Amino acid sequence: MKNCLVAQSGGPTSVINASAVGLYLANKENGHFDKVLAGLNGIEGVLREDFFDMSELSDEEVELLRTTPSAGLGSCRYKLKDSTVNKEEYEKLFDIFSRHSIDSFFYIGGNDSQDTVKKLSAYAKENGFDVRINGIPKTVDNDLMVIDHTPGFGSAAKYIATIVLESYLDSLVYTNNGIFIVETMGRDAGWLAASACLARYNGRQCADFILLPEVPFDEAAFAAKVKETFDKKNHVYIVASEGVKYPNGEFLAATKAQSHDSFGHAQLGGAGNAIKAIIEANGITKRIKVLELSVLQRCAFHAVSEIDLEESGKLGKTALELAAAGETGKVAILVRESDDPYKVTFTSTDASNIANKVKYFPAEWVTPDGFNIREEALSYFVPLAGKLPEYRVIHKYHNM
Amino acid sequence: MKNCLVAQSGGPTSVINASAVGLYLANKENGHFDKVLAGLNGIEGVLREDFFDMSELSDEEVELLRTTPSAGLGSCRYKLKDSTVNKEEYEKLFDIFSRHSIDSFFYIGGNDSQDTVKKLSAYAKENGFDVRINGIPKTVDNDLMVIDHTPGFGSAAKYIATIVLESYLDSLVYTNNGIFIVETMGRDAGWLAASACLARYNGRQCADFILLPEVPFDEAAFAAKVKETFDKKNHVYIVASEGVKYPNGEFLAATKAQSHDSFGHAQLGGAGNAIKAIIEANGITKRIKVLELSVLQRCAFHAVSEIDLEESGKLGKTALELAAAGETGKVAILVRESDDPYKVTFTSTDASNIANKVKYFPAEWVTPDGFNIREEALSYFVPLAGKLPEYRVIHKYHNM
Repeated sequence: MKNCLVAQSGGPTSVINASAVGLYLANKENGHFDKVLAGLNGIEGVLREDFFDMSELSDEEVELLRTTPSAGLGSCRYKLKDSTVNKEEYEKLFDIFSRHSIDSFFYIGGNDSQDTVKKLSAYAKENGFDVRINGIPKTVDNDLMVIDHTPGFGSAAKYIATIVLESYLDSLVYTNNGIFIVETMGRDAGWLAASACLARYNGRQCADFILLPEVPFDEAAFAAKVKETFDKKNHVYIVASEGVKYPNGEFLAATKAQSHDSFGHAQLGGAGNAIKAIIEANGITKRIKVLELSVLQRCAFHAVSEIDLEESGKLGKTALELAAAGETGKVAILVRESDDPYKVTFTSTDASNIANKVKYFPAEWVTPDGFNIREEALSYFVPLAGKLPEYRVIHKYHNM
Repeated sequence: MKNCLVAQSGGPTSVINASAVGLYLANKENGHFDKVLAGLNGIEGVLREDFFDMSELSDEEVELLRTTPSAGLGSCRYKLKDSTVNKEEYEKLFDIFSRHSIDSFFYIGGNDSQDTVKKLSAYAKENGFDVRINGIPKTVDNDLMVIDHTPGFGSAAKYIATIVLESYLDSLVYTNNGIFIVETMGRDAGWLAASACLARYNGRQCADFILLPEVPFDEAAFAAKVKETFDKKNHVYIVASEGVKYPNGEFLAATKAQSHDSFGHAQLGGAGNAIKAIIEANGITKRIKVLELSVLQRCAFHAVSEIDLEESGKLGKTALELAAAGETGKVAILVRESDDPYKVTFTSTDASNIANKVKYFPAEWVTPDGFNIREEALSYFVPLAGKLPEYRVIHKYHNM
């Protein structure tokens, strides 16, 4: 008996289940493992021996799982300590692996999860356990090193771009319009906010401002430019990452949450609300709406990117092939060969190249004033989201 | 030369443009009017003679307009005063109608807009103007009298149900889950919040609580039941209308916005945040997420209900036929003949039956404790939203 085990970790995405299913179906085809076991709730569930044999699912259930958002195997936020700190946990894990004839363990997750892959594979090598440990990347944040982009990001980018376009049109219907602010996820890296650059109307960028954690926030320059834009168009559309920071590294959200008294109104602490407070404090307008996309950007499978869904499955298959070839301590990745026609190849990298590292949004793709994304970035984003809706309105405010 | 004029008013919906296009295409077919003019930005634009000849659009542009959210002709929030108060405005309007050979005016909107239809048609009759004034219903709130349901509502209901299902699955992935609160629109009537009853997983209702403006909010009973549910499931999913009120008629949002100090943290004033504060104040848990759907529920055309889109177009056609038959002061409506198979007929009612009135969510469809929607309501909702996504997860927390 030679089984494998797959588990999910960290925040959900629209396509995290597609990786597990891709791996399961690839194994069904090549028969490398007797069973594909799912460890429920990540490494937490594995430590409780909470397993599920994926072959118990009917073909229809497998297909439904593939097209289901949220972590269908359950998830956890559990960071494995170093084996020098907590050796018992490692001993327990490899004992469980042994008792369940687990030849290979696959962990689907972001840079924290790939740290687990790195630690477990190193421990196995050092202690002579013949178990392969490999990773499958996942995160809507798109902040993993080496990989061109992460599964989950394309769907989140498509969702953000779609919502930005739709709410942009919505925000322009009156003669007397206001300021619309969308807050995206992305505490350290601005890829999600930046993907709003995909939202275009009449060939022009919808967002007047796209604010990223990587660009120190110049409040005075921002307020001045918002005022200028509002005076000209009677409308401003702003996309802000939750992680936007002042030059001293402090989050906008944190600062404004504390200072709500000085602005005379309460703040919840989100970046969007902080920006609203700044605009009000500068007397620009009081007609401001804030939309925090919250979990929608990671779970709105109803607007999935088909390319993302397909690639996520193929990365599961790639991981299976890595293990079958005897590899360990690797993460399945994709490398972009060409933007147009879009072409990627599937290969792998050492988990140590990904674990605990963050890939920031490139400075050269930010406009010189720091307030938007350059057109040059589009060729990177366009293929990942796939087809966006196309809309047409006729009143003049929309055609500005 | 005999023209007609169509304009849009109030908040956008996903399908408001489909009514204008339905009217335009029906006229193209039967040739009743020489031109279909679009009045830009509602009655405000009409008063400025801000017109657009819809035949200037190519077939492709007409189809794009049909499938575009937001008010594609522009909108306004302008309530026509009584003609005894401001007669000049009426004189100006009918002068404009005359100079542009406008034989018929169609106003697409909710109960305020149908008040305009009622006033203008009465004024025309009283003053001998041979102009027909008819209304086309529209509102995501679904709060118009006589009509079985309003165009725009089905798409909003589909969007809310989809997002509730997706965020419900998202909120259950950990072993240690929390409380998730979704806030919908609906200040007076709870139809939008109630449509969350469409979100079901494994045949069971996702939302533990659905709170409507029509049901006086019993804070003590609510806190006790949330605690009981959370103690049992370690998870609670709540949908709340923005208009939820205390028995004294005060909005939850308003109260909590003022009382943020006593709870020790700032509040923005939304119903969702007020409920979060209540849950925290009762010491139930601090793991609470609030998602305010904001404008998404009215503009997310990417998740449009096909039935809603089709019916919206047919109501435009019905209004055209009303005018062609010489009717005035009417609103095109739909009457439900059967739930399953779903069947509606298109007819009309006097604008006075709709103007300034509100259709509340039926008390008999609310559960006895006031905290959820009865199964009996499903047969009303199901056909309006059309097909919802189907999902499948395997970990036990999802199958509770």
